[in-house]
Amino acid sequence: MTTQQLVSEIQKKKSFLCIGLDVDLNKIPPHLLKEDDPIFAFNKAIIDATHHLCVAYKPNTAFYEAYGIKGWKSLEKTINYLNEKHSEIFTIADAKRGDIGNTSTMYAKAFFEDLAFDSVTVAPYMGKDSVEPFLTFEDKHTIMLALTSNQGAFDFQTKLVEGTELYKQVIETSKSWNNSQNLMYVVGATKAEYLADIRKIIPKNFLLVPGVGAQGGSLEEVCKYGMTETIGLLINSSRGIIYASNNNDFAEEAAKKAKKLQAKMEEILKS
Amino acid sequence: MTTQQLVSEIQKKKSFLCIGLDVDLNKIPPHLLKEDDPIFAFNKAIIDATHHLCVAYKPNTAFYEAYGIKGWKSLEKTINYLNEKHSEIFTIADAKRGDIGNTSTMYAKAFFEDLAFDSVTVAPYMGKDSVEPFLTFEDKHTIMLALTSNQGAFDFQTKLVEGTELYKQVIETSKSWNNSQNLMYVVGATKAEYLADIRKIIPKNFLLVPGVGAQGGSLEEVCKYGMTETIGLLINSSRGIIYASNNNDFAEEAAKKAKKLQAKMEEILKS
Repeated sequence: MTTQQLVSEIQKKKSFLCIGLDVDLNKIPPHLLKEDDPIFAFNKAIIDATHHLCVAYKPNTAFYEAYGIKGWKSLEKTINYLNEKHSEIFTIADAKRGDIGNTSTMYAKAFFEDLAFDSVTVAPYMGKDSVEPFLTFEDKHTIMLALTSNQGAFDFQTKLVEGTELYKQVIETSKSWNNSQNLMYVVGATKAEYLADIRKIIPKNFLLVPGVGAQGGSLEEVCKYGMTETIGLLINSSRGIIYASNNNDFAEEAAKKAKKLQAKMEEILKS
Repeated sequence: MTTQQLVSEIQKKKSFLCIGLDVDLNKIPPHLLKEDDPIFAFNKAIIDATHHLCVAYKPNTAFYEAYGIKGWKSLEKTINYLNEKHSEIFTIADAKRGDIGNTSTMYAKAFFEDLAFDSVTVAPYMGKDSVEPFLTFEDKHTIMLALTSNQGAFDFQTKLVEGTELYKQVIETSKSWNNSQNLMYVVGATKAEYLADIRKIIPKNFLLVPGVGAQGGSLEEVCKYGMTETIGLLINSSRGIIYASNNNDFAEEAAKKAKKLQAKMEEILKS
């Protein structure tokens, strides 16, 4: 999917919501555990109920890997379902990968070719040659960790490197990499006040923003400091939406939570 | 496996060799492609031929994920084979994972419980709460990226943070984390001269050292600067060993390459 297609979809749906599909068998409605593939059954119900309210889905691969081959199959079924039924929706493999060059190429193949995701999240610690292999894939997007939503972000990301915070160095440096136009960045909603500075470095790139909802970030703050002319934001909510209810009405309740966020986004887009 | 068991194994085998099982279907002997599971067939042959010469195996998960569910099955068969036939061998899931707390716990379960590896590699960028969940597992080891073997290591890892290189800050900071005795660190053999400084910060922890062989690092230099009283080193070679030959004799030739490294290690241990 091209960035332009994503922007069009945002304008059409009046939403820049991304729903995180972080499925934990201990948290889904117990009646689904009788299904052949409870994870996929859960995802399918959530997707069917919410796809008109969001522009992206983001399965976090950890939640699938934890269930081994079964989990990997659920992930495959989920991405196939999305690509077949809702090819207009942007898909993110939240995998936070990164390795030396030939190995990163294998990861890129895993997520862009084998699983046919539109994008994958990567970690920047190993530098240019660990990220560039992802960037070579046409109409695919690489979403690099910049400033994450967790407390541990203050351990290294905000430390001063030659006078500038590490996360700013990471963003600045990555602009010179081959095909850097395919880069998006992760910036946590819990650190919205940092967005103004980030926009000085990358005025246009899309940001994937986790941390609204369960982690306490504010949608309004994020938009105030992070929004661009072509929106430039994907706001993720996972637990806050998908675990809205633990009963038979779980998909309906998830849709209500998604609708609430989408309505706020529509308001913001109008103003 | 406890660190003491690993040290005993090193002393018994006179080897601190780790063999990287980075299996690329384009590089293995073509006759194996007829097998039901060519990746596992390749790994089994390599393990059968080399297990007496090494103390650890390290499959890089990227190479398995690139083949989807099939690849994940090959990984599962490989770790099960190792745990059943050679439980004395230390196993490393080279996965370079790391995410916010509840997600890192899922990754830890994937590699320590579902796949029953002895250790997993993790990336430090997201800080303390992204690594600590891995450290809580008893007799399991978390191998954190410190100074990697690739060129991109110079993009951020060696940059000065408040007067100290980032990789040193990462190592120093991690010492204060809960259960930090379960930490090992990745330090590339291509940067052996940095090892003396690293040993000042962590005189005892094991280091996983990739980059000997195909990437050009020197075994002697690594040992000179990095070895401790209880060895404290696992030297990895992947391509240099497993792709020694592309014919029927591939396992035999791999064993010869492994033997050559093991013999050098035996010499070093004597001196």
